[in-house]
Amino acid sequence: MGLKNLDTPSLILDRKVLEANTRRMTSRLEDRGVRFRPHMKTAKSIDVARMAIAGNFGGVMVSTLKEAEYLADNGISDITYGVTVLPDKLPRIAALVKRGIKIGVILDQVAFAREISRQAVNLGIVLDVLIELDSGEKRAGVFAESPELLEIGRALAELPGTRLEGVLTHAGHSYQSRTIEDIRRVAEEERMVAVTAATRLRAIGLPVPVVSVGSTPTATHGVNFDGLTEVRCGVYMFGDVMQSEIHSCEPSDIALSVLATVIGHRPQFNTALIDAGALALSKDRSTAAPGLAEDIGFGMVMDMSCRQRIPGVTVGHVYQEHGLLVSEGPFPYHLLPVGSKVRVLPNHACMTAAMYDHYYVVAGDNDQHIVSWPRINGW
Amino acid sequence: MGLKNLDTPSLILDRKVLEANTRRMTSRLEDRGVRFRPHMKTAKSIDVARMAIAGNFGGVMVSTLKEAEYLADNGISDITYGVTVLPDKLPRIAALVKRGIKIGVILDQVAFAREISRQAVNLGIVLDVLIELDSGEKRAGVFAESPELLEIGRALAELPGTRLEGVLTHAGHSYQSRTIEDIRRVAEEERMVAVTAATRLRAIGLPVPVVSVGSTPTATHGVNFDGLTEVRCGVYMFGDVMQSEIHSCEPSDIALSVLATVIGHRPQFNTALIDAGALALSKDRSTAAPGLAEDIGFGMVMDMSCRQRIPGVTVGHVYQEHGLLVSEGPFPYHLLPVGSKVRVLPNHACMTAAMYDHYYVVAGDNDQHIVSWPRINGW
Repeated sequence: MGLKNLDTPSLILDRKVLEANTRRMTSRLEDRGVRFRPHMKTAKSIDVARMAIAGNFGGVMVSTLKEAEYLADNGISDITYGVTVLPDKLPRIAALVKRGIKIGVILDQVAFAREISRQAVNLGIVLDVLIELDSGEKRAGVFAESPELLEIGRALAELPGTRLEGVLTHAGHSYQSRTIEDIRRVAEEERMVAVTAATRLRAIGLPVPVVSVGSTPTATHGVNFDGLTEVRCGVYMFGDVMQSEIHSCEPSDIALSVLATVIGHRPQFNTALIDAGALALSKDRSTAAPGLAEDIGFGMVMDMSCRQRIPGVTVGHVYQEHGLLVSEGPFPYHLLPVGSKVRVLPNHACMTAAMYDHYYVVAGDNDQHIVSWPRINGW
Repeated sequence: MGLKNLDTPSLILDRKVLEANTRRMTSRLEDRGVRFRPHMKTAKSIDVARMAIAGNFGGVMVSTLKEAEYLADNGISDITYGVTVLPDKLPRIAALVKRGIKIGVILDQVAFAREISRQAVNLGIVLDVLIELDSGEKRAGVFAESPELLEIGRALAELPGTRLEGVLTHAGHSYQSRTIEDIRRVAEEERMVAVTAATRLRAIGLPVPVVSVGSTPTATHGVNFDGLTEVRCGVYMFGDVMQSEIHSCEPSDIALSVLATVIGHRPQFNTALIDAGALALSKDRSTAAPGLAEDIGFGMVMDMSCRQRIPGVTVGHVYQEHGLLVSEGPFPYHLLPVGSKVRVLPNHACMTAAMYDHYYVVAGDNDQHIVSWPRINGW
């Protein structure tokens, strides 16, 4: 069964590109002497996780407890949960800890530290906690120079039920970068914030075994990793058009695409339709951000081999199950006959992948042995 | 277990509002003498389907074959599949037909009619086909006045394996309306296109038992239903902020919301964080369309009872698992303490619901008997 026999829309993962992406990041960070903790928020798949941890120490990051539970069920035993831990979530976390899974959680408020401590004691666990730092994204975290940092550090070290494991930051604002030089500047900010916070905590006698940073752009282009113990990132595995436009990857490094069928021609309007719409592609419009090379609409339209772009054609609009292909010049209907298939590269791999419960994994164009890898969604 | 004990993010469905919405549309269309075929693309739930067909003839519309298979497995036996049927999909459709399910499919190209005929014969079925019409949306369909209409009609009537069931159109451009008068104008266009096409087909001796139209705005406000046999719509069940802004429903008719927890305050930036981001809310930005009353960002932020809006606060930005609450004036932190819960009304119910595999169904604020209804996703 080849690509042309798959039902559409389907989510396609190119195994060779995926392997090259995971190997490249693993080897880059190994060369720089930092542990690499791949983030599973994009892939949410044990098969991809195994590939990502190969050659690394085996730990992963997750964005939901469901990911943590799923990966733990499938043999991953060192997991950092990357969203401010709510006291309500402690019972699920304690269940994992009691199964022998090492779980790290993050927080940025002393009130939560106290609540977590109380709940952890009630549940009979000691929880490893990292203090989340704001390295310029302005989303979550405390500032490295703030009094709150030391207050939270002392609370975690002194309270029962918690153990201060270290500090962690994510320079999500690296996505606003437009050049590699920009990314390198953000990477150095991210590093400096983490190292400064660790130094301040150590200066008051607290142990800080983990100093963790990461985002795909900064992990890809960061130059200096001094003082860091760990790097994390996730979308590098698959890449996407946004990441290629901000120079985190080459267009040929994009491993994820949506297979769709051309279901209609409308020459009166210079358009065509595919059977991949808002649910198959997501409504992510990351490439519409200012300063990027090109706004690709709702996805970049490639031929079925995914080697050639269909010139001038973009997904200009999406309906729930229809994608409207538009063209600035005369529509190249001869390249896209009704019934033919295309591959659509996503704006943002995390959002597009989340619309599917499995990947079709292909090795090359004429792969007759396509396999299906499950993925999970939800919380 | 009440709302305050649910894990967040969760998808909440208000049973009373849902029941009122389904009863209102059923009774409106019954009064106008047309059959009502609820569209299950928004809800994708057998429990909601049963409520929607109550008082109607029992048929539904679906947007994916997975919906058709799921609903058939749960006792629905009359289903129209509302995306151009691809010949590749015939085996799955034939399996349903052979189980005794009445399946209607749509197409707008004579080449597909011939392919469908060939495949249907091979599979040993006779398939009911509706001709899709373009009533002004410019997405799919043939024009009512076009020669293609008659060509497709003749092909479907004459070829083996197909039966011409009628004509169908969806005035999706009603979503561009800004007043009830606009919607009524679109509804009349939608009706006229369907009736014109039916008249032309009948004039050449072809039977047209089904003349079907529908969209939530036109079904809600259409005045004249003469010549129509069937109306279809789906988002009316749940409503959403976009529908309320184009006057398809009142804000109090919105049955769907996302329950989220406030996970951080950032007074330095006049912001707060909730644990519902791009995956929990979707990236739909329908209310950003020109001419609408208000752009609500990624969702309208309500208190936990969903009765009061948090004044001045919107979801200004979404990250994968974080929503950034912003405020034009000073942020009302006293209304949203860290750890408190909010309900977020969606821009677009179809997109937000698609991020979840179940609903928590509540009857009133202090419901201690919240039940879970499964829903499906995918293709």
